[in-house]
Amino acid sequence: MKVIIINGPNLNLLGQRQPEIYGNQPFGVKLDELKSQYPDVELSYFQNNSEGTLIDKLHEVGFSFDGIIFNPGGYSHTSVALADAVASLKTPVVEVHISNIYSREEFRRHSFISPYSKAVISGLGLYGYEAALRFLISDKI
Amino acid sequence: MKVIIINGPNLNLLGQRQPEIYGNQPFGVKLDELKSQYPDVELSYFQNNSEGTLIDKLHEVGFSFDGIIFNPGGYSHTSVALADAVASLKTPVVEVHISNIYSREEFRRHSFISPYSKAVISGLGLYGYEAALRFLISDKI
Amino acid sequence: MKVIIINGPNLNLLGQRQPEIYGNQPFGVKLDELKSQYPDVELSYFQNNSEGTLIDKLHEVGFSFDGIIFNPGGYSHTSVALADAVASLKTPVVEVHISNIYSREEFRRHSFISPYSKAVISGLGLYGYEAALRFLISDKI
Amino acid sequence: MKVIIINGPNLNLLGQRQPEIYGNQPFGVKLDELKSQYPDVELSYFQNNSEGTLIDKLHEVGFSFDGIIFNPGGYSHTSVALADAVASLKTPVVEVHISNIYSREEFRRHSFISPYSKAVISGLGLYGYEAALRFLISDKI
Amino acid sequence: MKVIIINGPNLNLLGQRQPEIYGNQPFGVKLDELKSQYPDVELSYFQNNSEGTLIDKLHEVGFSFDGIIFNPGGYSHTSVALADAVASLKTPVVEVHISNIYSREEFRRHSFISPYSKAVISGLGLYGYEAALRFLISDKI
Amino acid sequence: MKVIIINGPNLNLLGQRQPEIYGNQPFGVKLDELKSQYPDVELSYFQNNSEGTLIDKLHEVGFSFDGIIFNPGGYSHTSVALADAVASLKTPVVEVHISNIYSREEFRRHSFISPYSKAVISGLGLYGYEAALRFLISDKI
Amino acid sequence: MKVIIINGPNLNLLGQRQPEIYGNQPFGVKLDELKSQYPDVELSYFQNNSEGTLIDKLHEVGFSFDGIIFNPGGYSHTSVALADAVASLKTPVVEVHISNIYSREEFRRHSFISPYSKAVISGLGLYGYEAALRFLISDKI
Amino acid sequence: MKVIIINGPNLNLLGQRQPEIYGNQPFGVKLDELKSQYPDVELSYFQNNSEGTLIDKLHEVGFSFDGIIFNPGGYSHTSVALADAVASLKTPVVEVHISNIYSREEFRRHSFISPYSKAVISGLGLYGYEAALRFLISDKI
Amino acid sequence: MKVIIINGPNLNLLGQRQPEIYGNQPFGVKLDELKSQYPDVELSYFQNNSEGTLIDKLHEVGFSFDGIIFNPGGYSHTSVALADAVASLKTPVVEVHISNIYSREEFRRHSFISPYSKAVISGLGLYGYEAALRFLISDKI
Amino acid sequence: MKVIIINGPNLNLLGQRQPEIYGNQPFGVKLDELKSQYPDVELSYFQNNSEGTLIDKLHEVGFSFDGIIFNPGGYSHTSVALADAVASLKTPVVEVHISNIYSREEFRRHSFISPYSKAVISGLGLYGYEAALRFLISDKI
Amino acid sequence: MKVIIINGPNLNLLGQRQPEIYGNQPFGVKLDELKSQYPDVELSYFQNNSEGTLIDKLHEVGFSFDGIIFNPGGYSHTSVALADAVASLKTPVVEVHISNIYSREEFRRHSFISPYSKAVISGLGLYGYEAALRFLISDKI
Amino acid sequence: MKVIIINGPNLNLLGQRQPEIYGNQPFGVKLDELKSQYPDVELSYFQNNSEGTLIDKLHEVGFSFDGIIFNPGGYSHTSVALADAVASLKTPVVEVHISNIYSREEFRRHSFISPYSKAVISGLGLYGYEAALRFLISDKI
Repeated sequence: MKVIIINGPNLNLLGQRQPEIYGNQPFGVKLDELKSQYPDVELSYFQNNSEGTLIDKLHEVGFSFDGIIFNPGGYSHTSVALADAVASLKTPVVEVHISNIYSREEFRRHSFISPYSKAVISGLGLYGYEAALRFLISDKI
Repeated sequence: MKVIIINGPNLNLLGQRQPEIYGNQPFGVKLDELKSQYPDVELSYFQNNSEGTLIDKLHEVGFSFDGIIFNPGGYSHTSVALADAVASLKTPVVEVHISNIYSREEFRRHSFISPYSKAVISGLGLYGYEAALRFLISDKI
Repeated sequence: MKVIIINGPNLNLLGQRQPEIYGNQPFGVKLDELKSQYPDVELSYFQNNSEGTLIDKLHEVGFSFDGIIFNPGGYSHTSVALADAVASLKTPVVEVHISNIYSREEFRRHSFISPYSKAVISGLGLYGYEAALRFLISDKI
Repeated sequence: MKVIIINGPNLNLLGQRQPEIYGNQPFGVKLDELKSQYPDVELSYFQNNSEGTLIDKLHEVGFSFDGIIFNPGGYSHTSVALADAVASLKTPVVEVHISNIYSREEFRRHSFISPYSKAVISGLGLYGYEAALRFLISDKI
Repeated sequence: MKVIIINGPNLNLLGQRQPEIYGNQPFGVKLDELKSQYPDVELSYFQNNSEGTLIDKLHEVGFSFDGIIFNPGGYSHTSVALADAVASLKTPVVEVHISNIYSREEFRRHSFISPYSKAVISGLGLYGYEAALRFLISDKI
Repeated sequence: MKVIIINGPNLNLLGQRQPEIYGNQPFGVKLDELKSQYPDVELSYFQNNSEGTLIDKLHEVGFSFDGIIFNPGGYSHTSVALADAVASLKTPVVEVHISNIYSREEFRRHSFISPYSKAVISGLGLYGYEAALRFLISDKI
Repeated sequence: MKVIIINGPNLNLLGQRQPEIYGNQPFGVKLDELKSQYPDVELSYFQNNSEGTLIDKLHEVGFSFDGIIFNPGGYSHTSVALADAVASLKTPVVEVHISNIYSREEFRRHSFISPYSKAVISGLGLYGYEAALRFLISDKI
Repeated sequence: MKVIIINGPNLNLLGQRQPEIYGNQPFGVKLDELKSQYPDVELSYFQNNSEGTLIDKLHEVGFSFDGIIFNPGGYSHTSVALADAVASLKTPVVEVHISNIYSREEFRRHSFISPYSKAVISGLGLYGYEAALRFLISDKI
Repeated sequence: MKVIIINGPNLNLLGQRQPEIYGNQPFGVKLDELKSQYPDVELSYFQNNSEGTLIDKLHEVGFSFDGIIFNPGGYSHTSVALADAVASLKTPVVEVHISNIYSREEFRRHSFISPYSKAVISGLGLYGYEAALRFLISDKI
Repeated sequence: MKVIIINGPNLNLLGQRQPEIYGNQPFGVKLDELKSQYPDVELSYFQNNSEGTLIDKLHEVGFSFDGIIFNPGGYSHTSVALADAVASLKTPVVEVHISNIYSREEFRRHSFISPYSKAVISGLGLYGYEAALRFLISDKI
Repeated sequence: MKVIIINGPNLNLLGQRQPEIYGNQPFGVKLDELKSQYPDVELSYFQNNSEGTLIDKLHEVGFSFDGIIFNPGGYSHTSVALADAVASLKTPVVEVHISNIYSREEFRRHSFISPYSKAVISGLGLYGYEAALRFLISDKI
Repeated sequence: MKVIIINGPNLNLLGQRQPEIYGNQPFGVKLDELKSQYPDVELSYFQNNSEGTLIDKLHEVGFSFDGIIFNPGGYSHTSVALADAVASLKTPVVEVHISNIYSREEFRRHSFISPYSKAVISGLGLYGYEAALRFLISDKI
């Protein structure tokens, strides 16, 4: 089973940026944990700050992978192009937000991606990625 | 560890009502599954169609339990009183929606409860309850 | 043929409350009239001021009765949970408002229930209940 | 007793246009039915696609007839001039919509005419005209 | 000097319709008054309930007359086509409303015509037509 | 003179819930104080978390008592049905909010009840109940 | 007959400020003209840039004069206090705007004063003051 | 192949009205050009300023012609009735605007007709009619 | 203990202006009553129609007095500058409105001052000033 | 004559993505067709998923080419930066959308680019590109 | 070169009011600094809390001075009259806000003055006045 | 002291694009000027049209530089991702706009970046960059 985690803009700063919101664990640590906990899943990772590059990557994996775990970061709230990309894919996308976006500023409470996502997880911290992964596995069976 | 699942209005019809949206599995089956999978958790269940009764139950459990998994159903979108109840509690609340509410009608995309929830899970189907439970367990440790 | 009339909040005060808007005939009089005019219809009646109790009643009758005539009163304008209940039923629901809600305050001009009702009657006074009943009979044939 | 049914724009296509919404019965059939069922009512009929011609007709009948049954079609949602005409009349106007306009597109859920109508009937299909007629008769007595 | 007064929908009912708002003087009386008071002005009059016919008339007079006094009635609030007609003309248009539209319902407080009118007079009663005429005369000199 | 204090949802938690907003005095202490300070007033008390039960209570006391002091809590912002109940009563209602709702979240700054209340007091803390009581007494004389 | 013209903020700059909008005639010239044309009217004049001073003046004249011609300038669009002052008076107020405010910026198209004015004149240039005066005279008779 | 061009309100003034927006070529010239360039197409033409008459014409041609090229002019932005007429037809409708409506006033940027049109062309000048015609021909093949 | 009552625009007309809303008692009578009822309070009074003068007065008393009872009148709904002044003070401000502003026009239901007031009293009539005074006294102790 | 077709995000998937909306023809086929049909036009092609790269390309061609045919895809609805780029160019831009964006979701009905485009074509399918090309040729002559 | 700094409402409290927002330096200190740093500029200063008095001052200096540095304080967000005054002047106005108004409450993020200012500086603290001054000097040369 | 100037999309066209808005001086000239005027500042420069590349650069410099002068161009109005990047940094950011964005189109008057910027300068032309630099220097000391 092939799954990819795609992190959007500013998520490369994780563990370093606004730790009171996003925690202080770099993403690499979580990724290694997931890989060792779910050895049967072929798990890739991609992070980029550019909308277009994220679209390219979604196109690349979205017809052959079994699942995409996608944290679109700030593009969630502004990008129709990314939403179109998600809508174009065959592979199901689970949208993950580390913090609970619904208890933050007004403009963060709407995501253009969500209507095209299979599911949305918000506020579970880094555990959200694991919950998404388990859902994709369970959904597969 | 004591956790309760609270289901709001119309969720007693699960498996019977609009199966194209909510699936056709009655909730009892999922509950038994969770109880046998997580024997260390003392897991209770409560369903009611009345806003006031749900508030009463939240008050009753919200200062002694270790976690509340709450699907407020249609009250999500209209009830400040339930949101106030959630805000008053000591116990963390994870809000769960079976369907992806963000891909449904406009008025379902806003939840008064979400700003006071610790996290929100939407569209994972009945698996959402399990994800919430695992998060509460992991968060505990 | 089994039909039920369900009246929502404050409609127990009919004939007593704001007669310039709702008229001064208690509902019992109209109900007796309908029962004697339509002896072939098995006509029940239910009134309650609680959202949850109304949902319970809709669940109870909504899979076996032939028609529901529902005046949701003030809940029309605020209750997604009641709208969800109506949407879950097999039995067709005709929504009735005694006064013409569209010529009253702005917030009374939108009903969450209407999109899920089979039809809406507003401003025919107590005759609205009879019109709904006749429609259910004619629709049946 | 003199009553007129006035149908607005596109209602000449009834039975032919979008039958999944408006049914497939031409209006003439219903009209004949009503005439034979209510022989004591002097029932006229008028259909026109022009806003101004509808206003002219309302002026013509609105001070001498006993009732007007008016389906303003698409003008419901855009015409202040028709609403003004209705407001100017002595004869009571019952507004009828064949489909349930409240479960259709957003812009169809508001009618400029409704605040000036005596009552509004929406979604009873062609039976709505009969319900309006019976209400006018009962209201007369 | 050639001036025309054009009255829009429902203004044929003047003196008869809602006298508490529009007064009880038929327009003919005022017109005769104006004709005798301003003998040097060649004053015509036109009233119609149809948007299209009003547009036709505006086209007909709008390139040769010296002034148009226009009460667009209910079309003020809804007609871009009439506004376009007014914008197309060479002759200046003074918009007149008998009642003070700004102290009435919300939807009457905006006129599509006003941005293209040379001036707007509202609430002077029938005197408004005279004020408009005098302005056109004074503006001419 | 008969007066009742009615407290809505979550107010049973007073002294325990969010003390930085609502203070840490349980309501019972204030109630005893008021009873001993105003021995001539027959003062009752009722608290409930259910909208329907609050409506029932308002109906019960609203035609015979001399005054109602009502803190509708979170229902203030969402309940048309409660507002209708208040509008139906003969007894004057003074609406009380312990905290200053106008300096809190946007959705708390509008109350459906206020247009039907005789007066509104917000932010006087528990003293607000006393101010309401004194007003009802002074208004009586 | 006693009439006062009150000009609000920036109107002291008339003839000097943005002549393409307001023309280049100082107000004094028009005032003298009016005084000599209407010798039977006792005509006063007042201009001030302060909201409070305008309120004071309205209070002073608003119970004894026969008419007030008021150009509230920029306060039209923002001042509830001036609107309250106008609403408090016995003397009728005719609101005058030199330019056609309805063809200018969005925020200039709403006047808080208009609902309380007897009439509104906009875009007649300085002639608007004369039209208002004539209306007050004619209304008097 | 039978195609009709229908021009709405004020388009009779083409070449004469606001040439900086609409150009200075009368429509007749373009029509003759199209007829000679596309001799295989049976091309009719209709212009009218009345909403109702336009609806009548659409009904007349909309079940037998192969294509309709429709410039609804100012009615684009206000007419639900015309939109309903377009929605009722079998013949495909291509909506044409001479100027680019999206770079003009806010209220011109929304067309009620567009959701029911097969395609929309805006800003190609008179060439837009030809583009529409070629599309209908190519679509036919 | 030093307290000042500050009344804003138009409140000098109290007892004279719109008595159906504001009652017919001049403020002086109430003031004398308060002075004799609460002899221990050093009670001053100030009324002015100018926003700037009210700001000046707030600055003057707002760092040394023990309480300010402020009725900002029409400035409540429009003045950020007054709100800033209130926010700058050390002395607590209780906002008082004689009528119940929440049951009046939409634009009166929002006060810029309220978020910075310690409390808000609306609709208690002149008694509201006394309630505010008692609160300041009780709060002091 | 030099013309470029620029396709924005996700248009590389054409023929593969959501064929019910965008058809199933890859763009290459259409491009070859256009090149052979219009041999006199020097026709280039560019597709990219990145906003910034599209801006770079527009800068590169926008001062020397004779025409740009631009389908901005999902960026149409969100990109001020692309709109600014279009506004900065000397070369005229014709905006093309394959599907009729005005009959799709609300957020797709507004394009930031359109006010700066010379013309907009929506819903002509791939023929839209040809229509744009012909317009640029005809406009050139 | 003659320049004036005009400070609006509440800015007399600078150094004393909400120091966490506005700093704790009285304005006099900064003014002396500027005077000694830019001896060639004839620098005046004016502060007032009244809208009308600020308008009077702008009129007085706005046709002869070389620059105005204006901090309109709370009037920024509500005063059309001040905006009109600024628009009437010949002298360029640079608007200065000490704090960054765009990171404060929603209602502070819009300034009626800004469209008529030559430039806007927000959040540079007291240095903003110097930046404005230098800009006026550099712009002069 | 290390400072960087970052210019966003389309600012590479400066001096060439819409000179009536942005002036006709290429940015290089200003940059050289600043470097020679402030030799003690180590001043870098970066311009890019891509949102993601701008984020990358902000990450690169935002933890070690002493100041960032950022003109986000068209991304100001649409990019939450850039705003998040700015919010993540340790280095203070001064936002600069060459033209006065508050006097331009509605959609340009809101910047997602501004709430996270330390200060905002708008409309000072190229001098704005110098004002920002001087502020960063003065703030440093």
